Order: sequence, then C-alpha cells, then structure tokens
Amino acid sequence: MSPVHSLLWRSLRVYQVYGANTDVGKTIITTLLCKAATKSGRVAYLKPVSTGSQEEADDRHIEKYAPDVIRKTLFQYELAMSPHAAAKGKLVPTDKELLSKIYDFASEEAKQDAGWLFIETAGGVHSPGPSGTTQADLYTPLRCPIILIADAKLGGISLSVSAFESLRLRGYDVQAILVFQDAKYDNEQYLRDYFTSRYGIFFASLPTPPHKVDDADVDAEKLSLYYKEVGESKIFAQILKQLRSKHGRRVAGLTSMRRQADKSIWYPFTQHKLLSPKDIVVIDSAQGDFFQTLAPEGDEKQPILQPSFDGSASWWTQGLGHGSPSLALAAAYAAGRYGHVMFAGAIHEPALALANTLLQNMENPRLSRVFYSDDGSTAVEVAVKMALRAARLRYGWASSTEIGIIGLKGGYHGDTIGAMDCAEPSTFNENIEWYSGRGIWFDYPSVKCINGRWVIEMPDTLRADLGDDQVFESLSDVFDIEARESKKGQEVYEKYIEKILVYHLSNGRKFGALLMEPIVIGAGGMDLVDPLFQRALVTVVRRSANLFGSCQESDTSNPTCWTGLPVIFDEVFTGLYRLGRFTASSFLKTDPDISVHAKLLTGGLVPLSVTLASENIFDAFKSDDKADALLHGHSYTAHPIGCQVALESLTQLRRMEMRGEWDWAKDADWSGSPSSQSSAAQTAMWSIWPSHMLNWISNQTQLVAGTWALGSILSIHMKTTDGQGYKSNAALKLQSSLLEGDREKLWNIHSRVLGNVLYLMGSQKTTKDDVVEIVKQVERALST
Amino acid sequence: MSPVHSLLWRSLRVYQVYGANTDVGKTIITTLLCKAATKSGRVAYLKPVSTGSQEEADDRHIEKYAPDVIRKTLFQYELAMSPHAAAKGKLVPTDKELLSKIYDFASEEAKQDAGWLFIETAGGVHSPGPSGTTQADLYTPLRCPIILIADAKLGGISLSVSAFESLRLRGYDVQAILVFQDAKYDNEQYLRDYFTSRYGIFFASLPTPPHKVDDADVDAEKLSLYYKEVGESKIFAQILKQLRSKHGRRVAGLTSMRRQADKSIWYPFTQHKLLSPKDIVVIDSAQGDFFQTLAPEGDEKQPILQPSFDGSASWWTQGLGHGSPSLALAAAYAAGRYGHVMFAGAIHEPALALANTLLQNMENPRLSRVFYSDDGSTAVEVAVKMALRAARLRYGWASSTEIGIIGLKGGYHGDTIGAMDCAEPSTFNENIEWYSGRGIWFDYPSVKCINGRWVIEMPDTLRADLGDDQVFESLSDVFDIEARESKKGQEVYEKYIEKILVYHLSNGRKFGALLMEPIVIGAGGMDLVDPLFQRALVTVVRRSANLFGSCQESDTSNPTCWTGLPVIFDEVFTGLYRLGRFTASSFLKTDPDISVHAKLLTGGLVPLSVTLASENIFDAFKSDDKADALLHGHSYTAHPIGCQVALESLTQLRRMEMRGEWDWAKDADWSGSPSSQSSAAQTAMWSIWPSHMLNWISNQTQLVAGTWALGSILSIHMKTTDGQGYKSNAALKLQSSLLEGDREKLWNIHSRVLGNVLYLMGSQKTTKDDVVEIVKQVERALST
Repeated sequence: MSPVHSLLWRSLRVYQVYGANTDVGKTIITTLLCKAATKSGRVAYLKPVSTGSQEEADDRHIEKYAPDVIRKTLFQYELAMSPHAAAKGKLVPTDKELLSKIYDFASEEAKQDAGWLFIETAGGVHSPGPSGTTQADLYTPLRCPIILIADAKLGGISLSVSAFESLRLRGYDVQAILVFQDAKYDNEQYLRDYFTSRYGIFFASLPTPPHKVDDADVDAEKLSLYYKEVGESKIFAQILKQLRSKHGRRVAGLTSMRRQADKSIWYPFTQHKLLSPKDIVVIDSAQGDFFQTLAPEGDEKQPILQPSFDGSASWWTQGLGHGSPSLALAAAYAAGRYGHVMFAGAIHEPALALANTLLQNMENPRLSRVFYSDDGSTAVEVAVKMALRAARLRYGWASSTEIGIIGLKGGYHGDTIGAMDCAEPSTFNENIEWYSGRGIWFDYPSVKCINGRWVIEMPDTLRADLGDDQVFESLSDVFDIEARESKKGQEVYEKYIEKILVYHLSNGRKFGALLMEPIVIGAGGMDLVDPLFQRALVTVVRRSANLFGSCQESDTSNPTCWTGLPVIFDEVFTGLYRLGRFTASSFLKTDPDISVHAKLLTGGLVPLSVTLASENIFDAFKSDDKADALLHGHSYTAHPIGCQVALESLTQLRRMEMRGEWDWAKDADWSGSPSSQSSAAQTAMWSIWPSHMLNWISNQTQLVAGTWALGSILSIHMKTTDGQGYKSNAALKLQSSLLEGDREKLWNIHSRVLGNVLYLMGSQKTTKDDVVEIVKQVERALST
Repeated sequence: MSPVHSLLWRSLRVYQVYGANTDVGKTIITTLLCKAATKSGRVAYLKPVSTGSQEEADDRHIEKYAPDVIRKTLFQYELAMSPHAAAKGKLVPTDKELLSKIYDFASEEAKQDAGWLFIETAGGVHSPGPSGTTQADLYTPLRCPIILIADAKLGGISLSVSAFESLRLRGYDVQAILVFQDAKYDNEQYLRDYFTSRYGIFFASLPTPPHKVDDADVDAEKLSLYYKEVGESKIFAQILKQLRSKHGRRVAGLTSMRRQADKSIWYPFTQHKLLSPKDIVVIDSAQGDFFQTLAPEGDEKQPILQPSFDGSASWWTQGLGHGSPSLALAAAYAAGRYGHVMFAGAIHEPALALANTLLQNMENPRLSRVFYSDDGSTAVEVAVKMALRAARLRYGWASSTEIGIIGLKGGYHGDTIGAMDCAEPSTFNENIEWYSGRGIWFDYPSVKCINGRWVIEMPDTLRADLGDDQVFESLSDVFDIEARESKKGQEVYEKYIEKILVYHLSNGRKFGALLMEPIVIGAGGMDLVDPLFQRALVTVVRRSANLFGSCQESDTSNPTCWTGLPVIFDEVFTGLYRLGRFTASSFLKTDPDISVHAKLLTGGLVPLSVTLASENIFDAFKSDDKADALLHGHSYTAHPIGCQVALESLTQLRRMEMRGEWDWAKDADWSGSPSSQSSAAQTAMWSIWPSHMLNWISNQTQLVAGTWALGSILSIHMKTTDGQGYKSNAALKLQSSLLEGDREKLWNIHSRVLGNVLYLMGSQKTTKDDVVEIVKQVERALST
C-alpha cells in the first residue's frame, strides 16, 4: 500500500471539523457550512467513521437539510459509542487503510468541478477511532486545516482551550473556531479574545439552534427554518470567505516558497550556482518516515502535495519518525517546566536522568562523566580538548606543542574548524581558510557485498602490507571478531599499524588521541570498515605505554584508565541504534575512553550532543587554577527540552528493542542468515533492508561496485568512471530516478548522495510494509 | 511583594486536584481523599476560589462528610459560574496575590504536625481564575503534583487526554488519574491503558457515587454510606500509598541531586576542584524570571524550595521568561508538524518565515541572506568562513595565506576552536591545545557611571594617543554620536586606528574581517564600549579600498557591497532587545556586512543561531565547483522547533515594544533622564534598572569602581586589589551575599561574576515590582 497522502488540491478546499466535546453542535454547524457552501458550487461531506443507528446518522441530517451535498460515510458502526468501542468485534480498518480511503474519496472529488469537502470527525478531538488511535493522532498526516467547534456550556472554556492545544501540538492549523451563542455562560467573549489575541485565529459565534421538542414534525420545521436563516446569514458568507482566502494563501505560500528561499536562504553545504530553484524540496509537513512535499506541477485537479520517503533520515537524525506526538509532548513538558535554565554549577532532573541513562546503557566501564554540548561538531571539539590535555599532561609536553590525532582516511567529524582539523586534507576542506589537518590518517580495508558475497576490500595502497581481498559467507562472519582473531587475522594489521606509527613518531610527530567513527565512515563515503582493523588500531595505541612519550606519571592498574593515548569514538552517526545496537563500539568489543553522541540522541527533534569521558580524563583538568578547567560551554548547554526529549527517545528505543519490535527484520527469511548460524549471531547483525535486495543490487555489476546494509542504513556504491569520492556524479542518475518516484501512485524517494555512493536510511520506526514498497522503487530505478 | 514560592515541604504532602471537565466528581473524590487521609494524621483542604452559593460550596461537603479536615476558602464568589465570570465587578486578587495567599496557608499547615493538603481547583483545567488567567497557567509556579479526575461520560476519553496534555505542556507532574467506574462507556479501560503504557501514571477507578434523589435526607444518608464504604476501601489506601511514596521520592530526588551531579556531570567552564557539591544549584522548575531551587537545609517544617532570581538570565538566553506556555506550544506545534526535517536544498515554512522576519527587522540594507546554525560559536565560525573567503578572493591571496581578524581586546566569540581563535591570547585560552589567536585586538575606551557621572575611561595604553577620560552628563549624551562627531570627537580615534593598522600591514600581516561585539564586550568583562570608537573602527576599515590589499575586482558602487574588509558584528549577546533595541548595531548607526545572532533568538528555549550576510559576500562562494561552496552545515540546521519558537519570540518581543510594555522603564522618573532631553533621546537609552540605583551603586566608591545599565543588563565593576579580569575574586563577596538572599521571606538572587564584575540581567518580561525588590537586595548586599 502506498504511503499516506496529505489532502491538498487547488480545486478542492478540504476542511476537517473537530469538536471540543461531544454534543457541541458539530453536525449542525457542518450542515450549515455545507449548506452555505453549496451556493458557490459542488460540496461534499465525508464522515469517515459514523456510530449509532443508521437512521440517526449525521449524514441523514445533511441529506435532509442540505440535500444538494454529496454525502459519504466510510465506516458505520451501530452502537452509539466512541468508534473504538462501537467497532469492537466488527471489521476494523487499520489507520492507514482509513486514511487511504479518505484520500481516495477526496481525490475523486478533486477531479469534479468541486469546491468544498467537509470531513466531520466523531466525538471530541481525542475520541479514539476504530483502531483505538485517537482521532487527533490518526488524522495528522492528512494535514487538513481544522474548524474547531468550541463548547458553549459551563466548563466549555476549559474544554475548548485544551482541545485546541491537543490539536496544535500535533501540528494542526486551526483556521476557524466557531461556537454557539449562549447568554448565560458567555464563553464566546472569553474565547474570542483568547484565540484572536494569542493566535490570531478567526472566531465566530452562531445563533443557538432551536430547542428540541417532542413533536418530530415541529422539530424538523423549526430546524429547517433555523438552517435557512442562519445558513444564509452574513456570518456564513464571512466564514467561507475566510476559509477560501486561507486555502488560497496556503497554496500560494507553498508554490512561492522555492522562489523566496532561493532569494533569502544560504544553504548548508550547497553550491548555490548549481542549485536550481526548481530543485528545492518544499516540505509542508512530515509524519513517520515521510515528508509531504510539493508535487510536480500539474493541472488544478492534481494533488499539490505528495509523500516523499525521507531517505536520508533527515541528515541521519530520525529515529522515532517525524511528528511524534510523544516527543512533541516531552519537549513541551520541559519547555513548560523550565524553558532553558543555565547549567554551569546547576542541575536539573532531565539532565541528570539523561546522563545516568546514557552512562548505564553504554555498558562501558570506562565512562563516568557526561559533558553536554549542542551538536556533533562541538561535541567532537570537546572530546579533542579532553584527550589532548590528558595526553599532554601525562607526557609532559609544553602547551605550545603541536599535537595531532590519529584517524582514518575519509573520517569526518564536523564543520567547526577544530572538528574539521581532525579530517585529512581533501578537495573539500583544503580551500577553507583556517583549516589545517592536524594528524595522520590510516587507509583501511572496507566491507561490501559484491555479487552476493561479502568481501573485505583491500585498497591498493595496503595490499603489499595487508594482503589481498578476503571473502566471507555472511556479514556476521566478517564481524565475528573472536573467530577471526583465533585465526590471528589481526596480527598483520597490528604490525602494519605499529610500523606506520613508529615512522611518524620517530620523525618527531606527537599525537594526543585516536579518533574514529566506529564501523561506518559516514560523511566520508558511507563506507563499512573492517572491524578487525579498527580493533587493531585500538590495541596498538593502547598496548605500548611509552610509545607516544615518556609517562610523567605511572600508569595506574585501574582498568578504566587510558593507556598509550585516549581513544575517542565518534558515534554521532553510528550510535544509538543507527546500526541496530545501542553503541557502535559493541561491534568492536572495545570500550573507548571518550564517546561522542548526537543526532539520534533526541530521536530526531532538536540539537543536543554529549561527550562521555572516563574519570581518568576528567581528573586531568582538576587543578587549583580556574583556567585549567575544560573551557567549553554553550549558552544552551544541557537545555531541558533536549534532555527531556532524549530521555523519552532512549526510553522508547530501548523499549522497542526489549519488545522485539525489530524482529521482522531479524527474521532469517528477511536477513537471509545462513541457517547454520546461531540465532544470536543472526540477530547480532541485522538490517531493515532485506538480504534479497542486497543480493539483487550486488549483482547489478554493470552499475554497482558493491553494497551493504546494517541497522537502518543501505549503502549503494556505484561504479564510476570519474573517480570515486565526493566529486563523482555517478550516483546522480539513480538519485533522480528515485526522486521521480511512482508517478501513478504519486509518491517518491528523497535521497542524498556522497559522490558515487547513494544511501537510504530509515528510522527505527520504519515498517516492513514501507520497506517492501521502497525496495520495488530502488530495483525499478536501478533497472532503467 | 516577594516572589512566588513552590509548595514543597517534607512535613506536608500537597496535591492539587484538577478535573478533566466540570461535574466529573472532583469534590466527591477530594472529599474521599481527605477522609481517607485523616486516618494517618492532620489533613487540610483548600479551595482557593469558590463560586456558587455559600450553602452549596464544596467545603460544606467536606465539613459534612469529612468533618476532621481543616477547611479554607480564599475567595468566594456567589454566582455559580466560572470564577472569572463570577468575580466580575467584585474584589479580584492578582494572580500573584492569590498564589501568595495559597503559599501562606500551606506554609502555616506545614508548621503543624501536618500530613496532607488537598487543593481543589474550579471547573476544568483551563477554567479561568478570577483574573482571567486560566488555572493551568495561573498555578504553574506552585508546581503541586496533580491528581487528575478523568471523565467517565461519553466523550470523556477525549476530554481526559486533552486535559492531561494541557497540564503536561505546562510542566505539571500528573501523579494519579482517578475516574468513576461506568459500565456503559467503560472509558476506564481505555484510559488506564493509555496513561499507564505511555506515561506510567498511576491510574485507579472508583465506585460511582449514588444517584441524587429528591429527598435531601435520603440523599445525605446514601452519600454518607458511600463515603464510609469507599473512603475506607483498599483502593484509597493504595492511592494514598502511591502519593506518599511519590512525595518521598521527589524530596529524596531533589536532596540527592547534588551528590549525583557531582559524580556524573562534567560542567561547562567549571574548575571541578573548586566546585563544592553543596554549591551546586538544584533547579526544580523555573517560571518567569525565577528558578525554584533547593533551599538551604532546615528542619522538616521548612520549605524545601525557594525562588531564586535568575540573575544571569540563564547565561544570557532568557527573553520571555522561563516556562512560557506560548513558547512551549510553539515548540510542540513544530515538533508535531515536522519533527526535524533536513534543510540542505529544502525549505519549510518556519525557516523561511524566520529568515524573512529577521532580514526585515534588521533594517540593514546590506543583509539579504540567512545561514542557520546551532549556537553563537558555530554561527561566528560561519561568519568568519564567509568573510575570510570574500576577502581572500577579492585580494587574490592563495588559500594557504595566514589571514587574521581585527577585533577588540577581551572580545569573546565562542568556545569552538575557530571561534576561540578570534579572541586574543589570555590566561583563559593560551592553555588550550589547538588554540592560536589569529588577529590583532584593539584596546578601547569604556563607559561607566562613577560617582553619579558618566565617564569614558581611557586605558593607560591609549592615553598618549587618545587623550584623557571624558565626562558626560548622561549615558544618552555618550551615545549621541552625531553631536560628538559634529565636535570631531572621532578624528583622534580614526587617526590612531589607522596608524596601528598600517603598522601591522606594513609588517606583512593580512586581515580578512573586522569582528566585534557591538556596544558591550560580554564574556570578556561586561564592558560598555565607547560607541564612537567602534564606529571609528568601521569607518577606517571601510574607507580605504586598497588598505588591505590590491583589489582583484573593481569595487562596485552598490552601497550594500563591502569595502576594505567585511565587517562582522557578533550580536549573539547584545542583539534582539538585550540592550533594549532590536539590534545593537543601531546604537552605532552602522550596518555590518555580516551579523550573528543567537541566545535571545529563541526567547530562551532551545539552541538556534543565524549568520546574516550581504549578497555580495554570498556571491563570493558561487562557482562551478561544489568544493567552493560554504562547507558548513549541522544535522539540525534550521530545525523547525527552533525556527517556530524564534518566530513566536520575535513576534512577542516586537509586540511588547509596539504596545509600550517597557514604558515603565523608559519613564523619566525611573530612567532619571534630565528633563532637558527630548523624549526620543530619553527612550533611546533605557534600562529596567533604575537610575537611582545606578547612582547609589556608583557612589559606593570604597567597593565599586563603576557601574552601568542598559536594556536588561546591570554591570557592577568592583574595585580590586588582585588585578582586574577573570582571575579576580573581588565580586565573590557580593555574589555570595545575593545568594544568601532574604532569609526571612526566603528568596535569593543567583548571579554570575566575571572576575571583578558582577552583573544582573533580567528578561524582557521582568516586572517593575520584581526589580524594586531586587534593588533592595543589591543595596543591602553592598552595604554589609
């Protein structure tokens, strides 16, 4: 089933009517809206889910008093209860099925000479739909503008404001608030002032409908008169004018955004001379793994928006899907409780709880301290400041000593100058004025699936020392470190690494840290690194206490103390379940002295990062001099919103793991693990991307050099004639074919390329259903 | 009147009972709670605001069925309506008065051998209190844990969930949700599952009370029996056990946080060896300008929390006060609509709207482009990357050329290495491994109020060139740039600046930008800079096209193009109303080519920064080569939450300015402007800190070297015997006296010092009432 579409057409104005409570006159007001709108053209009325007897159903009301209106009910349940209760034991559509049927109906309406579609909800904003999801959660992807019917009764102010807030915190745009006049409680006056002064929302009050009387005929007559008088009154003309103008402005806004953005935005990492305004992706909203983006221009009956799979997981940040109401509420809670509060010398609950949660879940006995900062780049700078100081003090170097880091070729750690200095010189930074690569960078063996087999590819530069490519049956075998070490596979690596280090050290170079991204080189080309090589690097760096200088202090026997050099793992991208596990270091069975985390930390909501360190490193900054402290700290350090959201994210991710919510992907059929492997080994290396897909891609040898998948990442390395790396354009054709997407069902895949590499990335909430559809698109795109 | 206190004692468990709707049985359940609690000690019941006839008041219910309970109603209005409606035309307490009376009552209870206090609200969560503020907004500073009575009726699921969300987004902790059993709708089952699985909240259902009958005696008898049976049932024992244990955990949590934080947190800019755990400020919540912090330890009848004025405006971020519900809802809206969405080559509404709002309000014709990043430090790195590239290309320097910046002594621009490199070497960065000051830094004349007069102080190093101190009648006179320039006051400055520049240039130095904090040197010592000197710097840098190199391209006549060098203003601290105006550059009547903003940008909620630049600078990065682009971009670039919150903040700040909400501070009596000055000049330089205070402080000449105030900043420069600057401890005594605070009314002032300087900073919402109280404390602290 294709992804959910938002409802937006030029030709059709769609509104969803929510009530602040049951029995606030939703049906009467919707009938009035329908009736008034028929004056200017075709009007449709949709009740997705109706409860109660057919005879008393809301669309009967429409039929009787607004007979020109097209009517439709999608699901009818006879009990006069909340849909979830009425549907018990009956045919219950999934949320996606329900949304899809709504889209189909609206889509057909849009093809007519249509004008308006009013969708009436059931009960209050959070009344549960048939599946049990509350309507406010269920209908968000549709992103219909809302008409909220406020409550005129005693207590109605409270209910109306709360209902509004529940809608607003799900990203709904409430465009009009309507209420019946009531002389006794006069909620109208308060609510009008409240909503217009705070939110500038259009507000109108309507004459109260006639009281029900026992005689049905009299009742109908009175109501009929009411509908005639009120429906034709000025107020409804005014309401419809408002709605019409807001619809026009929304469409005009969306279609003019590219031009405006092209004039005022300076994009990150973007060569503006090569950016055509028409290629700017206009994002109206995002839910789960999908953006709703401006669709290619069509006639006025074509949808304006289309779902786009967020194939870069929004620059690698998404974990719990876009628009998660639980993350939104976590953010709002911390905002309401604290706003931001200063952190130097202060403590608040979310910061402390997050620190403890992280330290506990890392399962790294070395780590005992949490330093907060704002993003991966700043957190890496903090890590480097930590490591360099600790090393300098231990080896007794003067503060003016030029100290470098040991890293991997292609490693990338952020865009601030200090973080950039940790990356080797390349076409992409050598032009930057204050950049100077400070360190040495090892080339490394990398892992790919080629022709259905798992190959450790040895770069030409290393073959003389490290031998040829190695072939494995499965990725789990590549990562079976114990088995490979029992065959002494690491010895040749260690020997080579030591040789190179000794060479540089004997030339007077000084080093203060081993810094690398464990398992995956991200921005540097989405490359899977042979874990044995990274492990060998750590081993060599740690085993010789006096390799890097003569220790000024005796190394302690405490196993949590660093030896040789502090080892920094930059897990900004690879940690926190991106590769399917809480830490990436667990694949290496190695504990870093400093560990850097960001991106998924907040589940994909707000910037926040942490640098975790050992007590041993922490102690290096203790002195009687203020100036010896770690001099780093941003204004929003440990901002409560980020900490609270991170706590909620980590809790949810851990819970998903415990509950086996990724079991579908760990299944042998999907993962293609050889049955000979133990189930532990099977699930140790798992991905949302199926092995049959990898197999298929890896056999497209005319186009594809290799591929791999782990956790939520799929990486496709295209063959290239223009050299590998960032400057290659080899992946652009595949990218543009995915962006073209499924023209019939109107959805597409937004992806990012790194030179000759195209990658796709899901969230930790990505469904099997969606992956199946995406796999089809990728195979189609690679076949054409 | 002293600030509002949260309600937390060891000896007294305070709970607030909210209803999801009116008529959900709040009074009955509260009576049951009271009755059950009396078994274990003293119980008090407080109805802050009661409406309806005295005879039917809720406390009559308590009186009748739980006679042992202490009862109190603070405000009684006879009409049976919402409090705001019932109070119309009657005596209406301000919100602060009401909260203060609640605290007084609770405080007296805590002194007894008390056990419980139940505070019953009126109507639903958002029913307006007497002043019109809804209760959920009104009662937040009390931070009572909440017992929410859910609604068992049709539609009650929706109302209960929405009511919960409205509470949650104001930072309330809902500790128990109670509902009457109802076989028909069975909301209980749904709500129990919803709240326990999502939020882990204790949930219990209670037997339905007997139906009302006409005979009052029978009614009373039935109810009496109901109370006896239910109140003594296991369920209430269980509820009270839960509440008791949560209260215990809250107290234990707060009192153990320091110890825990001391073990796991690595603080920013903190010498841990000098940080005593007992000095860690434990922040339970924050509202407006006040934290609620752990109070000094007392006996168990003493309050556990006290209000603390957030005197650093939480490291200079606060604009709209802590815990603003409108900012919280703006954050939640963007979270619900988008989460975070990737920004490279994409656009979304909040990012575009914020960019346009900023560009428009800057009123700087040079600025046309907005680059988003995460904090002030990264935004400065972006600015420097921009300027250096533009200068290098214009002057045709090779990319390896060492290019410096021109800055001011003590200028500080952030903690990442690139931003640190923009600050001159000092004890505070020379120890940092990768730091190297890249540039030259001018000493400058600074402004202080000394003995009631405004003095431009000339540092000794500049006296030979720039003459002696100058004295002015008012700060407005110092800032009357036109008047001073008409007297040619700038000429001596310009001559000196040119001399120094020529000296360095003739020694082969190359410069790529003038970078400075306009008006106030912040982290470098909270120093007010003579605006004429900063203006002279800009003039000299701009006027000689070939001073810094030979132009490779002809300067265009377009007045928005930079000449000489790009001028960067770091307004991270000083912009967006911190000094009372939208921009700090407006004081200098000078338009920078690049302008950097953060901190107040989001009103004090989440990290977000912008670097605004001219089209001319932007064009320098255009080429056919991807690698020539501005290579910077964080994962959360232009995160929608930050942009939406910033939009809301700027809208509110602009609105406050338009509506004259700072007129009290601009008033001549307060500002002490000489009556001879025009009203425009009076209001051009205004502060929330009164001139009589400045006058008084500036006359404490034994202790104080000088003082100044502008916008929300008050800066007190203490006399020092241990040298000026960061290492001085001269301000510590004042700081600790402010932290001691008012022991009788139990509130204090949390402040930060910069060496010999103690500053206080309000938000843009700080009230005159609070300033008056703070002034008293400052004068007391300086007098003892």
